Amino acid sequence: MADTLSALRSLMASHSPPLDALVVPSEDYHQSEYVSDRDKRRQFVSGFTGSAGLALITKNEARLWTDGRYFLQATQQLSDQWQLMRMGEDPTVDVWMADYLPEGSAIGIDPWCISVDTAQKWERAFVKNQQKLVQTSTNLVDEVWKSQPPQEINPVVIHPLEFAGRSVADKLKDLRKKLVQVKAHSIIISALDEVCWLYNIRGTDVDYSPVVHAFAIVTLNSAFFYVDKRKVSSEVNSYLETNGIEVRDYKAVSADVSLLASNQLKPSIQGKGTETGIAGNGTIKAEESNNDLIWADPGYCCYALYSKLNPDKVLLQPSPLALAKALKNPIELEGLKNAHIRDGAAVVQYHVWLDKQMQEMYGASGFFLEDETDKKKQLKTAKLTEVTASDKLEGFRASKENFRGLSFPTISSVGPNAAIIHYSPQAETCAELDPDRIYLFDSGAQYLDGTTDITRTVHFGKPSAHEKACYTAVLKGHIALGNARFPNGTNGHSLDILARVPLWKDGLDYRHGTGHGIGSYLNVHEGPHLISFRPRNVPLEDTMTVTDEPGYYEDGNFGIRLENVLIIKKADTKFNFGDKGYLQFEHITWAPYQRKLIDVGLLTPEELEWLNTYHANCRSILDSYLDESEKAWLKKATEPISV
Amino acid sequence: MADTLSALRSLMASHSPPLDALVVPSEDYHQSEYVSDRDKRRQFVSGFTGSAGLALITKNEARLWTDGRYFLQATQQLSDQWQLMRMGEDPTVDVWMADYLPEGSAIGIDPWCISVDTAQKWERAFVKNQQKLVQTSTNLVDEVWKSQPPQEINPVVIHPLEFAGRSVADKLKDLRKKLVQVKAHSIIISALDEVCWLYNIRGTDVDYSPVVHAFAIVTLNSAFFYVDKRKVSSEVNSYLETNGIEVRDYKAVSADVSLLASNQLKPSIQGKGTETGIAGNGTIKAEESNNDLIWADPGYCCYALYSKLNPDKVLLQPSPLALAKALKNPIELEGLKNAHIRDGAAVVQYHVWLDKQMQEMYGASGFFLEDETDKKKQLKTAKLTEVTASDKLEGFRASKENFRGLSFPTISSVGPNAAIIHYSPQAETCAELDPDRIYLFDSGAQYLDGTTDITRTVHFGKPSAHEKACYTAVLKGHIALGNARFPNGTNGHSLDILARVPLWKDGLDYRHGTGHGIGSYLNVHEGPHLISFRPRNVPLEDTMTVTDEPGYYEDGNFGIRLENVLIIKKADTKFNFGDKGYLQFEHITWAPYQRKLIDVGLLTPEELEWLNTYHANCRSILDSYLDESEKAWLKKATEPISV
Repeated sequence: MADTLSALRSLMASHSPPLDALVVPSEDYHQSEYVSDRDKRRQFVSGFTGSAGLALITKNEARLWTDGRYFLQATQQLSDQWQLMRMGEDPTVDVWMADYLPEGSAIGIDPWCISVDTAQKWERAFVKNQQKLVQTSTNLVDEVWKSQPPQEINPVVIHPLEFAGRSVADKLKDLRKKLVQVKAHSIIISALDEVCWLYNIRGTDVDYSPVVHAFAIVTLNSAFFYVDKRKVSSEVNSYLETNGIEVRDYKAVSADVSLLASNQLKPSIQGKGTETGIAGNGTIKAEESNNDLIWADPGYCCYALYSKLNPDKVLLQPSPLALAKALKNPIELEGLKNAHIRDGAAVVQYHVWLDKQMQEMYGASGFFLEDETDKKKQLKTAKLTEVTASDKLEGFRASKENFRGLSFPTISSVGPNAAIIHYSPQAETCAELDPDRIYLFDSGAQYLDGTTDITRTVHFGKPSAHEKACYTAVLKGHIALGNARFPNGTNGHSLDILARVPLWKDGLDYRHGTGHGIGSYLNVHEGPHLISFRPRNVPLEDTMTVTDEPGYYEDGNFGIRLENVLIIKKADTKFNFGDKGYLQFEHITWAPYQRKLIDVGLLTPEELEWLNTYHANCRSILDSYLDESEKAWLKKATEPISV
Repeated sequence: MADTLSALRSLMASHSPPLDALVVPSEDYHQSEYVSDRDKRRQFVSGFTGSAGLALITKNEARLWTDGRYFLQATQQLSDQWQLMRMGEDPTVDVWMADYLPEGSAIGIDPWCISVDTAQKWERAFVKNQQKLVQTSTNLVDEVWKSQPPQEINPVVIHPLEFAGRSVADKLKDLRKKLVQVKAHSIIISALDEVCWLYNIRGTDVDYSPVVHAFAIVTLNSAFFYVDKRKVSSEVNSYLETNGIEVRDYKAVSADVSLLASNQLKPSIQGKGTETGIAGNGTIKAEESNNDLIWADPGYCCYALYSKLNPDKVLLQPSPLALAKALKNPIELEGLKNAHIRDGAAVVQYHVWLDKQMQEMYGASGFFLEDETDKKKQLKTAKLTEVTASDKLEGFRASKENFRGLSFPTISSVGPNAAIIHYSPQAETCAELDPDRIYLFDSGAQYLDGTTDITRTVHFGKPSAHEKACYTAVLKGHIALGNARFPNGTNGHSLDILARVPLWKDGLDYRHGTGHGIGSYLNVHEGPHLISFRPRNVPLEDTMTVTDEPGYYEDGNFGIRLENVLIIKKADTKFNFGDKGYLQFEHITWAPYQRKLIDVGLLTPEELEWLNTYHANCRSILDSYLDESEKAWLKKATEPISV
């Protein structure tokens, strides 16, 4: 690591102009949350493996910014050369650079790895001390990273209509309508999941997200797909062509954006419908429109591409595809529900297996009983770790129909590790399962018909009264949010507090948001909505997905989180005040909560009723996916609770 | 009214430049919510008597903007010449003027009646169509208002330390510290309650708010009080002088602000401490400071005064006095609690009296029983109206120690009138009490030791199941908000939803905020905090006051609102996650909720327990203020409820 920093500092010194600082963000050219191994530049330079963070290297210092989910993990992973900057407590990176880097500093960044939003925000902050954001012409980290993995060549596959639910033609038509509404003649699409969603394709370029490294440009009468052409079979090529989409090389996007800026980007092929006004896929003859803007999402479009455009002719607004993708069609909703049933069965099977292992290997009283561990029964030789356990969980999922991999690195965490919100156990260093400690697992999978994400927290021995009280407070928040009804127009920020109030009652809280959208065989974290203490003014809408995942974390001790995926749907309320229409949630995740960890006396009759109904549904919905012993276990786990 | 509009239109036409439109806001020169009769210009031109609204008169049209509380009332009061613009549904006034008034329009306004914030916002909106905000040199409404009441000459009185709790010297010292922190040499104070709070004075210039029509200017070494000098007795004058405050004529503020802008405003008297660095009241020698800004609150400072300043030397920020005033000192808190006890006793006495009248005059079954009205018992001659009833309520209050008047026009409303959120009954037109309909009263008083505000909703006959269900949903929201605990840093916008969720469950809601601060013998509506669906990023803090008043309104049928005043205080939570410190509310309003209107089956055990405890406290706290029959009534009204 020391070598890396000095190598980078040499490159910074010899750069023209010489750089006083170099920023290494976590993101790839598409501002992705999960990136390919080749793109893990921030992890390479800092050693910190969390999914979010930003590294800043100056002549004498190295600092890493990350958020509350990762404070503990970063403290453990960063070497002495690095200083941790805590988001929410320390100054933000732009404020810090503006205030602490010398006047006139040149701050380098690979312009492909920073969004327009971020770059512009920084440039505003830099004004007061005459600092300058310098776009490096190469990525300096790539130059010093000897063992950087090569770009993989993974095939692009078609995502069939039976799962996608809407044709590319329909999606293009809607998109072009939106372009016309805002007087744009084209849009640059940088977010990988938006490209894949729009063209109904998937890939394996990034772990956990079934996406393809690609850009798209859609104009009123053409559509382009920028991808390493070796990934595109002739079958896929002709599928795309049929949909009026032209495949171009990934690297051509740069030159093509310049052409687009001067209105000279022309398709080499003629797609369907370019001859008439508005065709099946909504193409419109260029000469018929007086739209002169290019739409780019400032949160995803990189500064490199933006710099090729005339700023007066760019519409910097969130991409319309984010909302279009978030509103699931009936086939996607059906697929998500089915995927979550199979996934729930795998999670129950994992519970059953783990319960048996904990009793047999560790002398635990098990999932149901609440006794001291029988140490005499502990096997001295066998060992179950966070990683070997979660591998088994993956196995149960892999046995299910339509499984295509995990949707994010499984958080499988024992005791103090469960307090590391986005803990990712490593085979060599991870902890052993412990019958006397809480075990938290947050995991999900990619199925062809839907993406899943579930968290459960369990104890196989004798939990403390404090652990039970905390688990119950988290459960109360989880139920309160899930049971809410609210008028159209309400955003997730307003609802966030419902999950916190039961915790606040005891002076407890958690340092993360409460819910995110989830994709349909796409990203596990999906916008544009969010349920969080951070304001985001995007109303929740009918057919969106969102998670419900409050938690509580005690550093060095334990962590608790409960997470289900919910679908937002119209509520059948008795009244409809203000004619707004009211919404409610439908849980689509199925796995029991642990009776033993619930302090039933703290639940209201309403909460208890919800819990019993949910458990009864778990039993009937998962029934056909379980064998007899698993059914028996689930029956016991979902026994109605009486006050 | 027709005459008024044509008279105004003539003045608009003959104005130089001729005006295409004239704006008549509700506010006086101090942006007050309640204004003196002389300042009710918007009411005079439009006929609409609500407290909030804005009139716009063009050559051919007249439009009135108001908010959801007043839609129904405005519909009833506006003549055919007026068009109602519904805030939240129709375009805002600035957007409407910018879009619908002709290009290049001259839009007139009295610059004393518009805040800097509003004027600047409008001017930005006007840019696109080259419209112009024209400051009229006189108030055109005053010119056509033949019977405009004269300015009253009411004495300024000293608000003694035993009620104010902090000396003027202390307050000035804190204020001057804040000026130095932001490099300001002075502040212009326009809000009437801020002037009165700072100088520990009160007056009777405005109904309901014990304030004085006055401006203040405080510099690092001087303090000025701009007021009609006839209102200042020699005793008050010497009190002010002792505190280093110079009395100048109200109209002199205009010239003095010009002097201030050129750094030439000098005191004629030498206050204490101007000779040393920082004295008892924090005066600082001008030459010792290098502060060159003038602080003005853009929400309160009028455009007329702001226009005299050099914009580069103005600090446009909310006044520091708003927060200082909102954080009540121990004496103010004690006074508020005592005032609310006496006020609660008056409200209980009113209940007892009203219960008797409703039974004797109208054959009602009364507060406790739930039977059909016995029409044979109804007296044909006697009559109880919304106004005669509320006069009686005022009488009970007036009999209490330290009473100084009402804190706002009492909302005394029967049946459909209760659905008019800020209904104000008029003696000639108001409704008669009705044993078969809901009666809502929202009222409060000014006592020397505190301001009160309480709403109760009652039924003296047989309420419908629907009315009970709605009352119970409102009560659940009221309890949920009042029982919340939350970390420091939480704002009222986040908490607002807690009061709505029980209503949303049934598709019900209300079109107003949920809570406002309340003054200490000052304005009944006080900032800077707020509990509302509208975002306002001011955290709630220990020692603030705030109301808890959800409601539900069914147009043409009935309205329900329940309101208590709460004090914010430190919560004694078991834990303190994040070391933020947690807060909770303390109810200081004492009057029973009506058992008959509660559908007990809808309450959780926790809610029921809260209700029983609150009722038991009502009984013991009010005991010494009630006679034997009133005690007996209250005992019955606060009987513990079992499930």
